[in-house]
Amino acid sequence: MNERAEVLFANDAFYAAFDGGDLVAMDRLWARDSRVACIHPGWPALSGREEVMESWRNILMGESAPDIDCHKAEAFLNGESAFVICYEMVGGDLLIATNHFVREGGEWRMTHHHAGPCSLVPESLGEPDPPASIQ
Amino acid sequence: MNERAEVLFANDAFYAAFDGGDLVAMDRLWARDSRVACIHPGWPALSGREEVMESWRNILMGESAPDIDCHKAEAFLNGESAFVICYEMVGGDLLIATNHFVREGGEWRMTHHHAGPCSLVPESLGEPDPPASIQ
Repeated sequence: MNERAEVLFANDAFYAAFDGGDLVAMDRLWARDSRVACIHPGWPALSGREEVMESWRNILMGESAPDIDCHKAEAFLNGESAFVICYEMVGGDLLIATNHFVREGGEWRMTHHHAGPCSLVPESLGEPDPPASIQ
Repeated sequence: MNERAEVLFANDAFYAAFDGGDLVAMDRLWARDSRVACIHPGWPALSGREEVMESWRNILMGESAPDIDCHKAEAFLNGESAFVICYEMVGGDLLIATNHFVREGGEWRMTHHHAGPCSLVPESLGEPDPPASIQ
């Protein structure tokens, strides 16, 4: 798998963990050797692994854990780090996200997730992305 | 100047160029050796230097170029790349932004800007950040 496919695979794993409410997979995805951050839609920034993972526990374990689809993911590589831009459909709302990754021990791990509203026409999104492994 | 201060200095230069409507400084700030992207508030993603710089020309040269203040900038370092999270006050609206940088030829250059609405209480923002050079 080339580097771009690896990063998209990590991005896909993030949405699979999110959509599936899989807190263990979500925890494994986030970096341990780099300081992490997270900006949920409309929220102020969360900084550091403890705050970020607490937010995921609340979101994924809550009674209204959202279904989420990822569309049109594009990876931007910068050596040992990378970011992915993609669109999210969450309960009928369209969001746009930037997901930042670093390589830790040979694996791409998340250091930052930033999602917020987007005015793109949903029809132009097409179908949800297939798993990165078969792209 | 240490690495963190260098990154915050580059972030500060971005807001100085934005607030001052300085298209030349804005152009100089963006990376040339890495593919860049930009998500203005509510917009779909812009991808590649041409699209991104065209958006800045339209924003900075427009009749209603906004005043902007940066607050509470925090830098997250990952070797030769970094991202900064900060709050923006733009014409009374509060936004939150992630700005990504890479090192090119010894200088920190922008590869991505993602800004969107934020619900943080503006009173807790405090005064705008001073220039990074004197932090």
